[in-house]
Amino acid sequence: MTERHTLESLQRRLEEFAAARRWQPFHTPKNLAAALSVEAGELLEVFQWLTPEQAAGVMADPDTAHRVRDEVADVLAYLLQFCSVLKVDPLDALAAKIDRNELRFPLE
Amino acid sequence: MTERHTLESLQRRLEEFAAARRWQPFHTPKNLAAALSVEAGELLEVFQWLTPEQAAGVMADPDTAHRVRDEVADVLAYLLQFCSVLKVDPLDALAAKIDRNELRFPLE
Amino acid sequence: MTERHTLESLQRRLEEFAAARRWQPFHTPKNLAAALSVEAGELLEVFQWLTPEQAAGVMADPDTAHRVRDEVADVLAYLLQFCSVLKVDPLDALAAKIDRNELRFPLE
Amino acid sequence: MTERHTLESLQRRLEEFAAARRWQPFHTPKNLAAALSVEAGELLEVFQWLTPEQAAGVMADPDTAHRVRDEVADVLAYLLQFCSVLKVDPLDALAAKIDRNELRFPLE
Repeated sequence: MTERHTLESLQRRLEEFAAARRWQPFHTPKNLAAALSVEAGELLEVFQWLTPEQAAGVMADPDTAHRVRDEVADVLAYLLQFCSVLKVDPLDALAAKIDRNELRFPLE
Repeated sequence: MTERHTLESLQRRLEEFAAARRWQPFHTPKNLAAALSVEAGELLEVFQWLTPEQAAGVMADPDTAHRVRDEVADVLAYLLQFCSVLKVDPLDALAAKIDRNELRFPLE
Repeated sequence: MTERHTLESLQRRLEEFAAARRWQPFHTPKNLAAALSVEAGELLEVFQWLTPEQAAGVMADPDTAHRVRDEVADVLAYLLQFCSVLKVDPLDALAAKIDRNELRFPLE
Repeated sequence: MTERHTLESLQRRLEEFAAARRWQPFHTPKNLAAALSVEAGELLEVFQWLTPEQAAGVMADPDTAHRVRDEVADVLAYLLQFCSVLKVDPLDALAAKIDRNELRFPLE
């Protein structure tokens, strides 16, 4: 039985992966923010010429589905590595943002 | 005692937040991929003119630290909403990517 | 009678503008590429939640039209400054690319 | 003797290129803004892991120099096509922006 991944365990795996390959000098906050932006662009690239209808169906094609999952992974990986370097807790940051948005966009 | 947030519980909160405000028609995969890319750009904006040294110290300034956390939250929020719409599991996608990267970048 | 602007004259104005304000140390190729990407994101932000139909009509609203022109200017400004720093001729680069694309996408 | 390219002549070539291939249905403002952002990300990708010093020397390597010129061309191509579709004059937009910036950042 495989244990369910958690964000924390994957973040730790990414830290160990980079440390074992001595990539930390490259993993500055600025470089990781740039890499995150580049990968978000690669995810957007999948959709750039699609109609809204075509875009909704991308996961039906196995190759495109793989590409989407791969780019999602890259975005999440750089986001987590960015958070590791600057000691930002991404889940706390998101929870606080949702709290603020509930005040900003109240339900009638 | 507050319970620890999990990615799954926050993803569900985001889904309910959007549903309660009837935002789902806007939350197409293409729009969410665009919004993710826009927010990743806003995170990068914090760092664009900084030297590597200055970039490493951004969390020492409370206003910049808040801005960084806010943009991290926005990136994560749009990534999770994108994954909800296309039924991509972001943790599985990342775990699979790390597995592939361990083969691609083996340790000597 | 006002003379027509050319890309070259505007590129020179941008160079003089940055030099007069001693901004050149910030205008490294990496920083300018990041700034270009950030501004392209701000242009995309105008369109992120719009349907294709709404997006086609953005110039009918004076405020949005101003915002679009402003972001176009920012993208072009950073592109020209990037080209100045690395001594890339943007018009030659584009002409060469169109030539290559004519071979890559031949007309039947 | 070859005539010097102008921004206007290249913009016209791009319009004719797209029309001859019946690509106009894809060239909506939203799609072109997304494509512009994607290409700006590809230009940034060249620099993402480089130190400022390495980034300053990218044109010394012929392959990287080619890649930089190619991405500059792509960014400029999508910017011009975006401007064609929305009838924005990029040179006027930039001149107006420089005028505004001269008021915003006055010389002492």
